[in-house]
Amino acid sequence: MELLFLGTGAGVPAKERNVTAIALQLLEERRATWLFDCGEATQHQILRTSIRPRRIENIFITHLHGDHIFGLPGLLGSRSFQGGETPLTVYGPKGIRAFLETAISVSSTRLKYDLQVIEIEEGTVFEDERFAVIAKQLDHGIPSYGFRIVEKDLPGTLLVDKLKALGVRPGPIYQEIKLGKTVQLENGMVIDGREFVGPPQKGRIITILGDTRYCEASIELAKEADVLVHEATFAAEESDLAHDYFHSTAVQAAEVAVRAGAKKLILTHISSRYQGMLSEQLLVEARNVFPNTQLAADFSSFPIARKK
Amino acid sequence: MELLFLGTGAGVPAKERNVTAIALQLLEERRATWLFDCGEATQHQILRTSIRPRRIENIFITHLHGDHIFGLPGLLGSRSFQGGETPLTVYGPKGIRAFLETAISVSSTRLKYDLQVIEIEEGTVFEDERFAVIAKQLDHGIPSYGFRIVEKDLPGTLLVDKLKALGVRPGPIYQEIKLGKTVQLENGMVIDGREFVGPPQKGRIITILGDTRYCEASIELAKEADVLVHEATFAAEESDLAHDYFHSTAVQAAEVAVRAGAKKLILTHISSRYQGMLSEQLLVEARNVFPNTQLAADFSSFPIARKK
Ligand SMILES: [Zn+2]
Ligand SMILES: [Zn+2]
Repeated sequence: MELLFLGTGAGVPAKERNVTAIALQLLEERRATWLFDCGEATQHQILRTSIRPRRIENIFITHLHGDHIFGLPGLLGSRSFQGGETPLTVYGPKGIRAFLETAISVSSTRLKYDLQVIEIEEGTVFEDERFAVIAKQLDHGIPSYGFRIVEKDLPGTLLVDKLKALGVRPGPIYQEIKLGKTVQLENGMVIDGREFVGPPQKGRIITILGDTRYCEASIELAKEADVLVHEATFAAEESDLAHDYFHSTAVQAAEVAVRAGAKKLILTHISSRYQGMLSEQLLVEARNVFPNTQLAADFSSFPIARKK
Repeated sequence: MELLFLGTGAGVPAKERNVTAIALQLLEERRATWLFDCGEATQHQILRTSIRPRRIENIFITHLHGDHIFGLPGLLGSRSFQGGETPLTVYGPKGIRAFLETAISVSSTRLKYDLQVIEIEEGTVFEDERFAVIAKQLDHGIPSYGFRIVEKDLPGTLLVDKLKALGVRPGPIYQEIKLGKTVQLENGMVIDGREFVGPPQKGRIITILGDTRYCEASIELAKEADVLVHEATFAAEESDLAHDYFHSTAVQAAEVAVRAGAKKLILTHISSRYQGMLSEQLLVEARNVFPNTQLAADFSSFPIARKK
């Protein structure tokens, strides 16, 4: 599991930072890539990475500002052109369907795969046996969502050596024991499966927020998260500007991380006024409040290790 | 007057060539830039040139395939964000309005300038005292237009020395003479204005075609053009493929140039199958038919000199 930042700028593309897109690489977990937002030229950024568009399974859109969605029609078309045939689902606020349907139909784009577009509301927007994604509305003037990606706990591994020591040979009974059931062995002995299974592996929690002012919903979404990705459009001295434009300062992002008890904070969506060394100011300000903070650049990647 | 190629690839962006956009720089003529097509990341390409988005006055769209229009919403938004306040007009086939209106409204983009969208048909789509743009439909499966940009002839300059030699002093009469009228001087002498005006400066003709098969409309649009910009998606050996996909080979582009009596041919819209040296093949093939051919690369520029 790895976060790969494809665009870390705000509003308009600049030479140093493209507009927003973040890839969550789930190659080990499901041989898939999930995207969060898809600003213009996200497919161009992908050309410079190992991401394969055909592997993109889900795209979650935080909000409909152009710097977060104008790369979608092109990426969807190119995925088909390059042979992508597996289904893809786009999750986003109301309006995302009209945008995609119009772009696709006007341009006569023919997709060779199944595209599903789901207009979301607050709640669980995705769930299967391994992951759930929970959405909540933030505070950005237009509907803007944050996403809490929850990896479910994995059951512990079967303690095979311990079973063999008791003389239990591999067979269908291993399945029963792994599920923690109480079973009777061939020799009449009764054992409690739970004693032959290691501890469950805790799932990871990644929180990726759309553009927002400082708000309580951010803290709820980021509770105990392994990684919190938060916008930091402005430095602390521009907190009035941040408020007026429905954005956050780096310090506010750090305060969310503290209050949520998150383990790591990654700052992104950096205004082009902070170029080169100037962006370090944001990092310093945030670290004063929450030491384990990183500043994302385009093509930064952050592995997310499993909890021990 | 200069052509600056911003994207010279076909279908999908590649590292070497972005999708289609061409700038016609009219800085001396009207302190303006006109764009022809606007594929995704055209605004990113512009960042690497001296083009100022606020100077973009007209955008002509040849056809609605995604690789020719998906950069429009972002460019229009960024032009406003960067302080562009003068009006801008987009000309394109039916459907361009629905595309732009949906993208702009869904993304809550607020433009600080007047955007006019004109859905074109064949005929004169733009005209003022200096330029006219004539559109004709090509052969591309969906409506695809070619544009003939005609610079009007400039009237000759007044031969002031010759007038002064006759004793004619500057005054309102100079205007009459410049218009070629026959006038009576103060001393009773009658002169023919046309004898006191230099030869008119011939205007230039630039023909920029959308994607197309070889067709007669291309030849009409390119008649005697100073420069013909023609797609060359395929090499000669792939002429069946070119036909099936409604595209042209480099040789077909050259044949259009020959039959139209164009002075110069520039090839663009090159399939990504012809990378690096392979693209030279297209140039060689075209030059065998029409020697004055160039192959455009991203950021190639071609000045268009005034006729002597
Ligand atoms: Zn936003
Ligand atoms: Zn086309």
